[in-house]
Amino acid sequence: MGSQEQTTLATQNQLFYGTFIYPKTLTDLEYLHNTAVAVDQNGTIVAIEPDYDLSQAASTFFPRLGWAPDSVSIHSSLASHNQFFFPGFIDTHLHAPQYPNVGIFGKSTLLDWLETYTFPLEASLSDPAKARTVYNRVIRKTLSHGTTCAAYYATKDVTTTNLLADLCLRAGQRALVGRVCMDQLSPKYYRDASAADSVAATRESITYIQSIDPTGAIVRPVITPRFAPSCSAPLMAELGKLAAETGLPVQTHISENEGEIALVKEMFPAKKIGAKGDTYTHVYDTFGLLTDKTILAHGVHLSEEEVQIIKARGSKVSHCPCSNSALTSGAARVRWLLERGIEVGLGTDMSGGYSPSVLEMARQAALVSRHVAMGYRERAKLTVEEVLYLATKGGAELVGMKGKVGGFEVGMEWDAQLIGLGRDVVDEEYEGEEKEEEGNVDVFGWESWPNKVAKWLFNGDDRNTKKVWVKGRLVHERK
Amino acid sequence: MGSQEQTTLATQNQLFYGTFIYPKTLTDLEYLHNTAVAVDQNGTIVAIEPDYDLSQAASTFFPRLGWAPDSVSIHSSLASHNQFFFPGFIDTHLHAPQYPNVGIFGKSTLLDWLETYTFPLEASLSDPAKARTVYNRVIRKTLSHGTTCAAYYATKDVTTTNLLADLCLRAGQRALVGRVCMDQLSPKYYRDASAADSVAATRESITYIQSIDPTGAIVRPVITPRFAPSCSAPLMAELGKLAAETGLPVQTHISENEGEIALVKEMFPAKKIGAKGDTYTHVYDTFGLLTDKTILAHGVHLSEEEVQIIKARGSKVSHCPCSNSALTSGAARVRWLLERGIEVGLGTDMSGGYSPSVLEMARQAALVSRHVAMGYRERAKLTVEEVLYLATKGGAELVGMKGKVGGFEVGMEWDAQLIGLGRDVVDEEYEGEEKEEEGNVDVFGWESWPNKVAKWLFNGDDRNTKKVWVKGRLVHERK
Repeated sequence: MGSQEQTTLATQNQLFYGTFIYPKTLTDLEYLHNTAVAVDQNGTIVAIEPDYDLSQAASTFFPRLGWAPDSVSIHSSLASHNQFFFPGFIDTHLHAPQYPNVGIFGKSTLLDWLETYTFPLEASLSDPAKARTVYNRVIRKTLSHGTTCAAYYATKDVTTTNLLADLCLRAGQRALVGRVCMDQLSPKYYRDASAADSVAATRESITYIQSIDPTGAIVRPVITPRFAPSCSAPLMAELGKLAAETGLPVQTHISENEGEIALVKEMFPAKKIGAKGDTYTHVYDTFGLLTDKTILAHGVHLSEEEVQIIKARGSKVSHCPCSNSALTSGAARVRWLLERGIEVGLGTDMSGGYSPSVLEMARQAALVSRHVAMGYRERAKLTVEEVLYLATKGGAELVGMKGKVGGFEVGMEWDAQLIGLGRDVVDEEYEGEEKEEEGNVDVFGWESWPNKVAKWLFNGDDRNTKKVWVKGRLVHERK
Repeated sequence: MGSQEQTTLATQNQLFYGTFIYPKTLTDLEYLHNTAVAVDQNGTIVAIEPDYDLSQAASTFFPRLGWAPDSVSIHSSLASHNQFFFPGFIDTHLHAPQYPNVGIFGKSTLLDWLETYTFPLEASLSDPAKARTVYNRVIRKTLSHGTTCAAYYATKDVTTTNLLADLCLRAGQRALVGRVCMDQLSPKYYRDASAADSVAATRESITYIQSIDPTGAIVRPVITPRFAPSCSAPLMAELGKLAAETGLPVQTHISENEGEIALVKEMFPAKKIGAKGDTYTHVYDTFGLLTDKTILAHGVHLSEEEVQIIKARGSKVSHCPCSNSALTSGAARVRWLLERGIEVGLGTDMSGGYSPSVLEMARQAALVSRHVAMGYRERAKLTVEEVLYLATKGGAELVGMKGKVGGFEVGMEWDAQLIGLGRDVVDEEYEGEEKEEEGNVDVFGWESWPNKVAKWLFNGDDRNTKKVWVKGRLVHERK
């Protein structure tokens, strides 16, 4: 691919200036105005100066950093266009090959959806030309929505799984890329021949992905048993050993849908697999798949007992509200998970979920929490601040980048978006057209910053994501 | 305003050619390709020719219609850009003055939301300059999302209510415009002085609106008691008489939130008002407010008994899924209403709902129906076809335009959108930028038309609404 040069290319020293908003804690956003954030050639934040006088930069700030003034590229957020810098979004669960099916799910639920829509499409992506088209598109699309890091499932095909990693690396999108393991209960045309074959193919993909990005700064492999029903006990046991041997992250699905849960119970009775209990969580735990680097997608119907096991193992949950509503899977109790100390991020779960946007996931997390709250669980409701935390800092915990991305602090890396809500609405009766190009958010001018953020959360889209950086590198810009 | 000339201006004869999609019934969309739809100078569809050869138009079709060929303006949908004509959307419930608050609702529910966010903003819109800015914006915005007809609540202020009607008429958006009646239980700064004052102000606004559009082709007045808690019994009784006297439509809210329902029960006991029963529905029925032209917003918690009364009166329900989820009001059982013969449309209910888009409402109606279905009510789920019916033909029933708009049939009026999903995705690795201007829907080229429509429903936005016509007049165009 000849792509390594591009991603390891040192960028210039950069100074970002203006308004910065980021999740300080689960419940609070930090708002910094007239602030300068210095990002070095490695993409690391080396200084933050609030209430900063930009005209003094060359004479005082740059010398202190040891920067030659003419080596610095300066980027400001435009107050006139209601712009601000925000951490990049982290999509903690999505299936790259399913992207062409977004919005196509009819009235299906998980198990018939897999058979009808999903397996045929995934199988067809072993065609490298088709895979290239689809994977390029999903990377460009998610970058344009501000996703700086994504935990991807590819397919069972090694060549095109590796291609996905190549394309992420070249585009500069951080990614966990997982070759999907599945040696049973899927169609004959789309199934690993044996547990041994599945593990060998997984190792092959891991080796390749580690070869193209040896430090794992941008792309990393992830061990990916599809979900318990499509993995034999020997396969899961081998993958658990592989996780222990390599220290690599793991991703899979858990407790998404009631039919699936019943199936798992039937397929993996505790006695047969030597589990200490009879739940979905016990299955993964028995095979060593619950580590502190495991991302469990969904967790809609988890029991108290299961959550305690997940908590003890340090595994994390990817909440996928759009998918859970679209496929009628259920309404996950995020507040309940958070109160039990589980780390939670957001996942688009395309194409169970129809939207490529983590902002939309934050919005839908707020809505689903209200469905959980309806009638009797008032405190289930998630706030604007909380869902934006899940979309950024929460997600960073899931992808193994806690303290590294998801906020703006010295020592963190510059994975960020420049958000612009457009000029304030003024009374020009037919001024509509160019205003609409600025997106779907209307700021009238009297709103507080928290209200502007709420407006962005609920009506924002990719038009508001003006620029996106990963590790200091500009990876997307709207013209 | 000098606006009458514009709206009564005869347009040219027009021929629309290409792909047309519209709801034939609740469950089925009609797909017409290579079809010609002839629309006369009054905006009425006078002929539909499927499998049409456009090159023959001048020699055979136009003479049959009595049209001089050079008097006809021709508009084609571009197959290369996945374009099709679709009926305009009907927003059956929204509050124009609340538009600046979209997305701003915190963790509130109905009654505290009214006090905290809504009444102060509405009261401030008695300032004509501010009202002009806000109302122009909401009209432009909803038109850009394909809303060809809207049932607006204004405020209690007559002057600016009339201004809203003026602006709708000039922009060419069909509208019901209601001066809001409220003589109790709202803040002193925003309340009618008495029932008599409220009715007099309502009459004044009705007279004005009927004077600017005497045939009511574009704008019509609507009698608008805000909701039972903010209207005294004498006020509701007078408004019921006014509805009977004038034959005008009525719009109000019903059974949105459990606190509100309890409040109504407490405020209007059956004995006190002489009602035949003790429900929210009985209150309106007692005062003659349930007519076959009444639009009831929400209806989330209606009982079987209430629905039977509503059905008997021929009143209709505006389903507002976005608002119901955002304000934690509940999940309305739309399938249950439809099965009881209630006519249902969709409402954005801005700013209880945060989105100006009826397409987004159709999407959220699908999601909310899945929350109703979760676990045990499988058949509650609404299909793509059903929610698009609610957004168009269903809405037409609510606003008194059944058989006139909402579909493409001879004799109906041309209220339509040109939808474009953009060119098929091709493998150009960095072709992303201009593609993104085409919107958020990616068509790969192998999708069936029903799947393209599903993709539009779930990821479409105003970028896909290329042109909008009302009664044959072009009222919005994306540059």
